[in-house]
Amino acid sequence: MKSYLEMTKTELTEELAVATALYDRIKGTGKMDMSRGKPNADQINISMGMLEIPAKELVNAADGTDVRNYGVLAGIPECRQLFADLLGVSAGNIFVGGQSSLNLMYDAVSKALLLGVYGGAKPWGQQGALKFLCPIPGYDRHFAICKEFGIEMINIPMDENGPDMTLVKQYVESDPQVKGIWCVPKYSNPSGITYSDETVRAFAALKPAADDFRIFWDNAYIVHGFSEEDDDLLNIFDACREAGSEDMVYEFASTSKITFPGGGVAVMAASENNIQFLLKQLGIQTISYDKINQLRHVKFFGDANGVREHMKRHAAFMRPKFDCVLKYLEAEIAPRGIGSWPKPKGGYFVAFEGLSGTAIRCVSLCKEAGLTLTGAGAPFPYGKDPKDSTIRIAPSYPSVPNLERAMELFCVAARIAALEVLLAK
Amino acid sequence: MKSYLEMTKTELTEELAVATALYDRIKGTGKMDMSRGKPNADQINISMGMLEIPAKELVNAADGTDVRNYGVLAGIPECRQLFADLLGVSAGNIFVGGQSSLNLMYDAVSKALLLGVYGGAKPWGQQGALKFLCPIPGYDRHFAICKEFGIEMINIPMDENGPDMTLVKQYVESDPQVKGIWCVPKYSNPSGITYSDETVRAFAALKPAADDFRIFWDNAYIVHGFSEEDDDLLNIFDACREAGSEDMVYEFASTSKITFPGGGVAVMAASENNIQFLLKQLGIQTISYDKINQLRHVKFFGDANGVREHMKRHAAFMRPKFDCVLKYLEAEIAPRGIGSWPKPKGGYFVAFEGLSGTAIRCVSLCKEAGLTLTGAGAPFPYGKDPKDSTIRIAPSYPSVPNLERAMELFCVAARIAALEVLLAK
Repeated sequence: MKSYLEMTKTELTEELAVATALYDRIKGTGKMDMSRGKPNADQINISMGMLEIPAKELVNAADGTDVRNYGVLAGIPECRQLFADLLGVSAGNIFVGGQSSLNLMYDAVSKALLLGVYGGAKPWGQQGALKFLCPIPGYDRHFAICKEFGIEMINIPMDENGPDMTLVKQYVESDPQVKGIWCVPKYSNPSGITYSDETVRAFAALKPAADDFRIFWDNAYIVHGFSEEDDDLLNIFDACREAGSEDMVYEFASTSKITFPGGGVAVMAASENNIQFLLKQLGIQTISYDKINQLRHVKFFGDANGVREHMKRHAAFMRPKFDCVLKYLEAEIAPRGIGSWPKPKGGYFVAFEGLSGTAIRCVSLCKEAGLTLTGAGAPFPYGKDPKDSTIRIAPSYPSVPNLERAMELFCVAARIAALEVLLAK
Repeated sequence: MKSYLEMTKTELTEELAVATALYDRIKGTGKMDMSRGKPNADQINISMGMLEIPAKELVNAADGTDVRNYGVLAGIPECRQLFADLLGVSAGNIFVGGQSSLNLMYDAVSKALLLGVYGGAKPWGQQGALKFLCPIPGYDRHFAICKEFGIEMINIPMDENGPDMTLVKQYVESDPQVKGIWCVPKYSNPSGITYSDETVRAFAALKPAADDFRIFWDNAYIVHGFSEEDDDLLNIFDACREAGSEDMVYEFASTSKITFPGGGVAVMAASENNIQFLLKQLGIQTISYDKINQLRHVKFFGDANGVREHMKRHAAFMRPKFDCVLKYLEAEIAPRGIGSWPKPKGGYFVAFEGLSGTAIRCVSLCKEAGLTLTGAGAPFPYGKDPKDSTIRIAPSYPSVPNLERAMELFCVAARIAALEVLLAK
């Protein structure tokens, strides 16, 4: 198989005819959805035991608290401890807040705007035009929060070690209007890479120009490895403790991709200063969260190791899907020289980078043929991929046979998009 | 028994000695808590069937939606319908948002401040000093939201028909800085009264000076009657439809005092314009709420009548407690002429109004003797009861025997406080 980059115009034209014929043959063989990082029903079934816990076991927390009544804003102690163990912090550095970490992030931004953060002289919202740094490609829902609140987003390139920390440092340390940065440090959404120790230490070493800058550390995939080997992410709070910068980090996690998406529990981890400050704000917003569901999670898992064991069962579903995606990309794309992709050991996504100017066209060809992908541009602030080259592949939801069909289609669409661009040169 | 108001100084002095001796005898007989409107464990037990629903029934909504996965931001249709029936609106006028109506109210204010409301030209937060009207006595957590966001609170007196609507109209129609009013229209917290039809119609007829004024209609006790006869509250949306003012109302409710406090489901009801506008904002904040718990509620109740039947069982717990409170007040306070109180047919509170200048002292005497009441002043903006006369009695949590002891103590404390004030004249 010859690289498209080495083909003559005539060869490209011939190849386009071949690819188009293939596309026409396989298109419309059924609707498929690879747009979001959601587990499929088989995977969700492994958590059904949590819904079978007898009612009488869902009455009292270990300290006797009636979990069915009001109170205990920060969450029941054993649930805080479970997450503390997973995140490598103390229970006092955790609160369990509802069932959506996205909601916790949104609320953290919203409260910073209206009320300010610990140590900040004024609410963000009283300080004029604000900026957030956005490592790209990243998570569209993070960017949507900034857009909603009119916070300017600045692209920060990433490589296999994480964001470009020279650039991050430059922005954060020179501009007091830079109030935050969005990070998915492990199995990053969508590139799948995990930040190196050096990157994490560089984060901890930041000396922000603003007195109210926060790192939004969305550790969504902390136990979501699916390979033999798990990526190691340095604990940012350990790094911050050395650097004396613990108040700079808000960490988030949830069980949405451990138990039930939208029906799990979500947590925030932060320094004691931050937690105390945030709980005071939180006490105005609500009386307490659903502690029955917190206890349900604790009873189901027992402890952090129980979560890790459970994740091995998830891995058994995920691995073949990623294998399938990579098999197609390696067979159909690699030899033709029209794309590259990191090979993630965990998480929910493969970030495909095609030739410049091909992403929108490729997604649209797939759509036309019945396959919904994440919108081209979605992993970028303002939905604008500067090179129009990145596509987020989310293989978790379809079955493997459907995924085979989807990837066959995806590869031919990527070929057509690449051929059109090369022919137009 | 002679009214204290008719006693000579000598008689008052003698009576104080008697009351003080009684107080000294009964104080310290055990800690009791009547501070919050929370159901007790026996009452909560009647909802345990909801936690026994087999896991396999908690998979699919009626339309086939897998409730265990992401999606369906507004809530599953059957849960929206259940609340629509209870509130007398259409399912399209409802969204099910988490488990705390307080959280929904806080978020509604917070989003109005940052992003604005439907039909408003600018976010509230860009319009200078803001004001909310606060019918008094009212719910301390409503007032805490205003305080948190620096919104000035204006006291509006209430009588047995609801807030003074002449005053409300005057403020709302003349001052564009008035952005909202807090209402608990049925079995009001804490007075227990229900707004008259005339009051509800007067709300619907308001022509606000602001283009972004909202009535916060916290219908917390909509099905929480415990007497033979239930108060009738006119449906505010019906009244608004006649007046063409449907966009002016945000209504809230939850099952916190139907199933599990903090572990139930909460809803917001509003015009279609408002709901569409709010769902767009909500879609940035979260992906979806806990639909498993929504389905659990629907399976447990069946329909709105199931909820009403369930509430009769709650009533059986509540009625004897209110009877006990009223029995003591009628025996110990009424003949002495030192207090008055509405006799609620539902809700969670009795609002005791003593002589001016006695509430703080009475609460403090109770506290000293082991009985925690809601702080004096709590039912007022800024915690300031202008007359220092109102105490919120929350009888739901203690058992009846404990409540007897608590009320005995309360009455003697109220007597001492009254005697001290009368003697100081």
